[in-house]
Amino acid sequence: MVICEVLRIGHRPERDKRITTHVALTARAFGATRISFHRVDSRIVDTVSDVGKKFGGDFEIKALSNPKNFVKKWEGTIVHLTMFGISIDAELTNIKNSEGPLLFIVGAEKVPPWVFEFSDYNIAIGNQPHSEVAALSIALSKISDKSYNQTFEGGQLQVIPSDERRNMVETKEES
Amino acid sequence: MVICEVLRIGHRPERDKRITTHVALTARAFGATRISFHRVDSRIVDTVSDVGKKFGGDFEIKALSNPKNFVKKWEGTIVHLTMFGISIDAELTNIKNSEGPLLFIVGAEKVPPWVFEFSDYNIAIGNQPHSEVAALSIALSKISDKSYNQTFEGGQLQVIPSDERRNMVETKEES
Repeated sequence: MVICEVLRIGHRPERDKRITTHVALTARAFGATRISFHRVDSRIVDTVSDVGKKFGGDFEIKALSNPKNFVKKWEGTIVHLTMFGISIDAELTNIKNSEGPLLFIVGAEKVPPWVFEFSDYNIAIGNQPHSEVAALSIALSKISDKSYNQTFEGGQLQVIPSDERRNMVETKEES
Repeated sequence: MVICEVLRIGHRPERDKRITTHVALTARAFGATRISFHRVDSRIVDTVSDVGKKFGGDFEIKALSNPKNFVKKWEGTIVHLTMFGISIDAELTNIKNSEGPLLFIVGAEKVPPWVFEFSDYNIAIGNQPHSEVAALSIALSKISDKSYNQTFEGGQLQVIPSDERRNMVETKEES
């Protein structure tokens, strides 16, 4: 399995609260192990931690004092998702075969130039404006064999897939 | 090419403004022809129309007075995207071979029971909580052969894919 993390650049607490929450939940559901962002927002931490408690797994959230340093020191491969990049399909094999853990960077609005500079790949999920949530989900679904079919241990709730209704059960704890 | 539209259910103007905008832009970028929602929000219309003006195409936004009626009268196949549904991979062939235009329904938080009832398919992109933006992008990427590589005519700007920087050019109009 590919080990990957996500870095959210440029989060603005009020404006981006819900989009960043969706980025974080998408990162978790599609198999990333951790999301980092600058000046962590406690409401996002609460929401994402609550999902982890209910549905399991050990997805991490990390607050960074200096995202640029974090990127510079990353020992692995850095993939910046941007509508200005080159097609993911052109580089997918290279990315999958690249060394070390993958760091996916997703920005809010305009990212600083160093993000392009320090990234090994500047990758587009199409060159139209859409959503960093969409871009991340497509990228992670292509990188990981499990894609959105991840399993998470230790949660309290489990969805029973249904064509008719919402159906969740409490998971039994072994004692 | 599969013709499809998106219906956004339960949009709450303040809380969901940016998520619904991302849903709309993702619908456009991944090949849907129109998005409809209840009590249209002028700020979303402005943002999405502006993207259409700049980047081309004829993506439509429609305000509905009664989403339930809209769904009941849909002449085609209805696919509700929900974390409680059955896996898209189990039904993908059936959905692709189904009759008439496709309507994808994406809800904000809890949807009313009639959405499950009137939908031909209640489909999950994994059974973990994540994002309606992620769910829609994955679903549309699987339904359409072009996925995120759509082309749009008549825009003012075009991205020149680059591994190094933001690069957009103004498109030349033929006279």
